[in-house]
Amino acid sequence: MMRPIVFDYNNMLDANLGGRGLSPRRLADLAERFREVQRGVARERQEGRLGFFDLAHDRDVVERIRAYASETQGRFDDVVVLGIGGSALGTIALREALLPPRWNELDASARGGRPRLHVLDNIDPSTIAPLLDRLDLSRTLFDVVSKSGTTAETMAQFLIVRDRLVRTLGEDAWRSQVVFTTDPDHGVLRRIATSEGITAFPIPPNVGGRFSVLSAVGLLPAALVGIDVDGLLEGARAMEQRCATDELTDNPAGLFAALQYLADTEAGAPIHVMMAYSDRLYAVADWFRQLWAESLGKRHDRSGAEVFRGPTPVKALGATDQHSQVQLYMEGPFDKTITFLAVERHAVDLPIPGGYPDIEALAYLEGHTLGELLDAERVATAQALASAGRMNMTLLLPAIDANAIGQLFMLFQIATVYAGAFYDVDPLDQPGVELGKRLTYARMGRPGFESPAAPGVEERWVVA
Amino acid sequence: MMRPIVFDYNNMLDANLGGRGLSPRRLADLAERFREVQRGVARERQEGRLGFFDLAHDRDVVERIRAYASETQGRFDDVVVLGIGGSALGTIALREALLPPRWNELDASARGGRPRLHVLDNIDPSTIAPLLDRLDLSRTLFDVVSKSGTTAETMAQFLIVRDRLVRTLGEDAWRSQVVFTTDPDHGVLRRIATSEGITAFPIPPNVGGRFSVLSAVGLLPAALVGIDVDGLLEGARAMEQRCATDELTDNPAGLFAALQYLADTEAGAPIHVMMAYSDRLYAVADWFRQLWAESLGKRHDRSGAEVFRGPTPVKALGATDQHSQVQLYMEGPFDKTITFLAVERHAVDLPIPGGYPDIEALAYLEGHTLGELLDAERVATAQALASAGRMNMTLLLPAIDANAIGQLFMLFQIATVYAGAFYDVDPLDQPGVELGKRLTYARMGRPGFESPAAPGVEERWVVA
Repeated sequence: MMRPIVFDYNNMLDANLGGRGLSPRRLADLAERFREVQRGVARERQEGRLGFFDLAHDRDVVERIRAYASETQGRFDDVVVLGIGGSALGTIALREALLPPRWNELDASARGGRPRLHVLDNIDPSTIAPLLDRLDLSRTLFDVVSKSGTTAETMAQFLIVRDRLVRTLGEDAWRSQVVFTTDPDHGVLRRIATSEGITAFPIPPNVGGRFSVLSAVGLLPAALVGIDVDGLLEGARAMEQRCATDELTDNPAGLFAALQYLADTEAGAPIHVMMAYSDRLYAVADWFRQLWAESLGKRHDRSGAEVFRGPTPVKALGATDQHSQVQLYMEGPFDKTITFLAVERHAVDLPIPGGYPDIEALAYLEGHTLGELLDAERVATAQALASAGRMNMTLLLPAIDANAIGQLFMLFQIATVYAGAFYDVDPLDQPGVELGKRLTYARMGRPGFESPAAPGVEERWVVA
Repeated sequence: MMRPIVFDYNNMLDANLGGRGLSPRRLADLAERFREVQRGVARERQEGRLGFFDLAHDRDVVERIRAYASETQGRFDDVVVLGIGGSALGTIALREALLPPRWNELDASARGGRPRLHVLDNIDPSTIAPLLDRLDLSRTLFDVVSKSGTTAETMAQFLIVRDRLVRTLGEDAWRSQVVFTTDPDHGVLRRIATSEGITAFPIPPNVGGRFSVLSAVGLLPAALVGIDVDGLLEGARAMEQRCATDELTDNPAGLFAALQYLADTEAGAPIHVMMAYSDRLYAVADWFRQLWAESLGKRHDRSGAEVFRGPTPVKALGATDQHSQVQLYMEGPFDKTITFLAVERHAVDLPIPGGYPDIEALAYLEGHTLGELLDAERVATAQALASAGRMNMTLLLPAIDANAIGQLFMLFQIATVYAGAFYDVDPLDQPGVELGKRLTYARMGRPGFESPAAPGVEERWVVA
């Protein structure tokens, strides 16, 4: 039985914040505009620009993934994803939320024979070299994830891995240790897959990296380690349904987008903290951080005018960051919203025993559980923030399971598209990263990319 | 031979940013004020308020730690730190920077017989329960870190661990599996240590949690896993020396504080991103995040006036976050500075082989190394940001070793004290977290903490 995520936004509104928050009237104004936003999204979806909506309905890919996972069952001790950004963050979020904690530290029996799951989302040689040295390559699957097949970081990793596989296993055998997740027709990886006969899964052309977690990008690794893929997609479809209404106050994604947009543009709060009160959900906050930043941080609006817009998402972890960031959240500038990710039912809990009945500072803990303490701290922090006039809201998951995570992914993806409409920017492009890529190519000597002139500054301000 | 951290701040200044950055004239003005700041810090140090300066000179504690580590060598497979905030972040930073990556995944021989190092800096039962189930308690040391001994999270963990140790090992034997790091004379943990005969290391009363990494808080776990404690302290002392001058442009901590302060207060950039171009340094950015936020985020200035000040630190990781945050950094509001943590010499590197000479999008990578690609991306990103008018600076570590990490810790700690003076706030207190603590106690039924009245709001804005 599916239970929905509950969204509590009382502490975003002025009545709870001593007049500091948003007025329900402004939200009502935006609710009018939201009807138009919802029509625009429906139109874009029909035009095929918003492919992520369709992923949870694509039975074919799921069947192919399931078949592959079933065929290869028992063959791999380690699955290594080579990917960065949108090719990695969703998979990490899935692993952290839906597998037992510290999965890769568990032995084979604790893992029920399922493989470890490594995601190499950086190119630091000090991380990659020792991992490659440790793997039994004949029992490892490398999933190379890049839509274009030109992502420098991922392709550099691929060249290193391929060379090592060929040298260890031979010119032919290496191919069965590799799988690609890439464009269905175009690009370098697709070309190599076709010419070398390597299994390849598709990323639909109308699905961008940061909206791809429910494509083969996230689902293939998920299926390989035994995560409940059907549950994920069911949760995603349920959230899609909840967000079909153009009544803003009934639409959780619409509300989330509207509240954040108003907080930024009308209440001076451009910093959007996502604070998970669960170790399992911290990586979801990191996945959200890409989605929100890359989609909304834009120089130009849709008419081409220069606007330099975009809120700054920040990930945080409760209770840990109460001892790091909450001092600032409570007393610093009124420039933030805090979204709590909370869990209603702790699947695992630990009773707190006594031991020192005479020490008052310990005795009150006895008889509670760790989960109760965690929840008490979350509610207390929300209440303290509200009483200091700080906007905050809570997304309460019924539990941490595939269904709830599917709901959450879909909620944030749809909210991002709505927010793009509110901010009047294109949430699907990322033109700002091109210059850095070209300058990197120039430094790496890629033909056609000349090194640009150094800035015409004589003076060097350096202290050594 | 000690090599210094190099600080390049060219890209903070208007000449490199098309007029968008800071003017050298404003920096020169602040250099005048800095002489007074430096005198004030010297005064506070003499008055004994800034105990962190003295930690790198305290031979006694280091000898005690070394003796304990040597006595217990070979007794423990796992060291588990129970601590949160300043009791955890420095230790995590040390582990990630100075031990081989994924230390806890390595087997005993790869660890050279040294113990794993777990830091339980949260109270999520889903993390803690399976770890406790897995440990061989007779071969585990628990280091309970809390200055007051009243930190709810840490003490709840302690009660759980103590109960389990007593039940497994007996009423007496449990004591040799536990060590405390706490106030030398006062507080709950000190009292228990004395009455039960448990080994306890001191946190000097004038050293706050976020300035404690070079006390026993960080040094004891470091010594237990074989990190070069002397190198750390030597680096810290060297940085202290460099920061003894009141000439701002020769003082790296002074410059860092001054540039961030000017960027916030005069250039509209209150978001201070710390972007490590090294997996090993990402946790240092997290440690910095506490230091900067909790020290500078303050409601009142030193005269008691209400100011609601404080920049927001953000941690980021290169090259990874080029595919997540750099779009926003390049095109969003001009509200950020980016500080790159860079490494001059990669201790480990991987050559990128060829394999597809006909595919131009791959061929240019051949003959380079992963480390070169990482460095090229960092320099390209800095250059791209500058050309978009975005302030950024680089701290270049000669290598990732104990000496350089010691320098870096001390640089940021001293910079935080300077920044407190520039912002005119007390960098050593954290009054804003008290309310949340009291509300938590009330929810947990601690005597003397009544539940405050619920906010007088009738309407509940909840969507389910």
